[in-house]
Amino acid sequence: MLNFELYNPTRIIFGKDRLDSIDKHVPANARVLITYGGGSAVKSGLIAKIKTILGNRKVDEFGGIEPNPRYTTLMKAAEIVKKDKIDFILAVGGGSVIDGTKFICLAAHYEGDAEELLKTGFRRITSDVVKKVVPFGTVLTLPATGSEMNSGAVISHKHGKYPVMSDLTFPVFSILDPTLSFTLPKIQVANGIVDAFVHTTEQYITFQVGAKIQDRFAESILQTLIEIGETTVKEPENYVMRANHYWSATLALNGLIGAGVPQDWATHMIGHELTHLFGIDHAQTLAIILPALLEVRRKKKHAKLLQYAERVWDIKTGTEDEKITNAIRLTREFFERLGIKTRLSEYGVKSEQLENIVDHLKAHGLHALGETDDHNLETSRAILKKAF
Amino acid sequence: MLNFELYNPTRIIFGKDRLDSIDKHVPANARVLITYGGGSAVKSGLIAKIKTILGNRKVDEFGGIEPNPRYTTLMKAAEIVKKDKIDFILAVGGGSVIDGTKFICLAAHYEGDAEELLKTGFRRITSDVVKKVVPFGTVLTLPATGSEMNSGAVISHKHGKYPVMSDLTFPVFSILDPTLSFTLPKIQVANGIVDAFVHTTEQYITFQVGAKIQDRFAESILQTLIEIGETTVKEPENYVMRANHYWSATLALNGLIGAGVPQDWATHMIGHELTHLFGIDHAQTLAIILPALLEVRRKKKHAKLLQYAERVWDIKTGTEDEKITNAIRLTREFFERLGIKTRLSEYGVKSEQLENIVDHLKAHGLHALGETDDHNLETSRAILKKAF
Repeated sequence: MLNFELYNPTRIIFGKDRLDSIDKHVPANARVLITYGGGSAVKSGLIAKIKTILGNRKVDEFGGIEPNPRYTTLMKAAEIVKKDKIDFILAVGGGSVIDGTKFICLAAHYEGDAEELLKTGFRRITSDVVKKVVPFGTVLTLPATGSEMNSGAVISHKHGKYPVMSDLTFPVFSILDPTLSFTLPKIQVANGIVDAFVHTTEQYITFQVGAKIQDRFAESILQTLIEIGETTVKEPENYVMRANHYWSATLALNGLIGAGVPQDWATHMIGHELTHLFGIDHAQTLAIILPALLEVRRKKKHAKLLQYAERVWDIKTGTEDEKITNAIRLTREFFERLGIKTRLSEYGVKSEQLENIVDHLKAHGLHALGETDDHNLETSRAILKKAF
Repeated sequence: MLNFELYNPTRIIFGKDRLDSIDKHVPANARVLITYGGGSAVKSGLIAKIKTILGNRKVDEFGGIEPNPRYTTLMKAAEIVKKDKIDFILAVGGGSVIDGTKFICLAAHYEGDAEELLKTGFRRITSDVVKKVVPFGTVLTLPATGSEMNSGAVISHKHGKYPVMSDLTFPVFSILDPTLSFTLPKIQVANGIVDAFVHTTEQYITFQVGAKIQDRFAESILQTLIEIGETTVKEPENYVMRANHYWSATLALNGLIGAGVPQDWATHMIGHELTHLFGIDHAQTLAIILPALLEVRRKKKHAKLLQYAERVWDIKTGTEDEKITNAIRLTREFFERLGIKTRLSEYGVKSEQLENIVDHLKAHGLHALGETDDHNLETSRAILKKAF
């Protein structure tokens, strides 16, 4: 087991009919900004309900935070926060709204040029850099990214996607009411399952370090997602299934299963380029890249892939290589049963565009990826080739 | 899945050579009290090492916190905290030292009679009741109780053991360096495994609520403890085994696996009486009661016992009842292989004393235990009978 530090002060308020707790956890005389996305939270009446619960507090709204939230959009909200002396932000939505809100909280009172915050990479932004951060809570309406219980964000700007990390941007609280997601389009539910699944594999299918309990927790999440995935897509109002989807997605990226183990994240890094270049949904890029990556990296990942095959997919027969081949096949088939295509060609990408993708990886400096930093541009090219 | 709230702001600093981080996380000009137990932390040089790391900070010491820490002992420390204007306490030891320190932190500046704090039961003490609480961190030397990452304590006073719960008594940080436990007596290591095991079963072997991910996390902890238990007792310096022991014990009682599921705790409640009456180690009382309780309550717990048999012990053959019988037998044998006896008679308790134990349960008002509150004194009597 590797040394680790684990800190997560977000209060999770989980279950049916929990919106009333907003009143308890938002300071009584705060001036509040509600942030949201495309407007379904308005149409459904959710925003109105939340405003009623906020009672006499003065409330501003900022809608229109897009999927893969953009710096320029978020800076408009940051201006409002500064101008209107907002004390507390309430993010209502999925990972994009929550990620975007984290950036708003950091940028609003940042004394330098906020573009600098995009260049911090995986270094955690401290209070030496951003002296005043606006606190925020979330109401999650789409189980997928885990942003509701972590302090990271991915922000899009010009030609790239930028990670922004800070201990200062944990939500104070997150309300996870699975019923709020009952009206989601099926594709978003399916995306959410894939997103949580690949968050888990990024922290699990690497190499052995004797972290037995972390491995089993990761396997628990994968098995649960496999068990509930199809049903929660087909039966949106099946509470038990959706509750397990919600909680698994949160646990997949709240720091817990990644504590003390190596991590990969190459599937995400390559996937980001596909979203950027072709507008493919984030989760779908993961479903395209993961099976191909596991094939190309199967020697490096042999021991963990075998463990994945035996424990997650319960594959007991065949040679080690056959077990691994079957596990990768079952992974792909699982994504496809959810309604997510797993081939680049199925999204209209042509093989002539392969080098363009590699060029973008190169331009973004992504020539040493993976849990051992030896996943180079050549490896990425091989993965992309296999992904068609 | 039941509704739940989960909040845990303790920072875990895990691994080899982590003591230096004390300097970072204890305020620079704090006046510090180091609390510890029987003195092994002094003899080993650990306290001296910590004092060196604390540098120029003014440091008091308070040793002699006993197993099952006593109110009268802790009040002496609380006096020192008040008199010497202690700003921060550093608990160095296992669950008893940490539990005791939580009580010291609450009692030091409590304006009423501190005995009142023992009467709060499972109601969480808020800042309305205790207005000023001293912050504390821990250096864990015995993996067992999970106290290093939760806010609960059990305090002994006169004729009873009292739970004390509060969101105000989470450790600010806990340093979990498995090597600090290499010199522990084997029996304490074995006790630690049993303690973590039964913490998990109390939150798992109850009834089904469709909490699939919580169930799998609980099974993960149980399987890990079974896998590493004997080895970590026999090979104290096997780092991988001890690291998994440490982290599993913390995860067994940090709120995670209990969130959204029914909980039992009757094994603990009956066990407390055995410690009180006969001085049997806490974990040993659990090893005595659990197998007997599972037998007596097997109908009520049928579905979860069957799941426990099939998933944790991998029992695939036989009728449902045979599977459950075998799982209970394997549980007992596991405790015994660790060197922990599982029969009351093996601890010198005579069957004539059975009614005396039941009388104590009655005197402490424990006539409605269990996940469904229908575990009455009659049930406890049957369990105790079976435990001989």
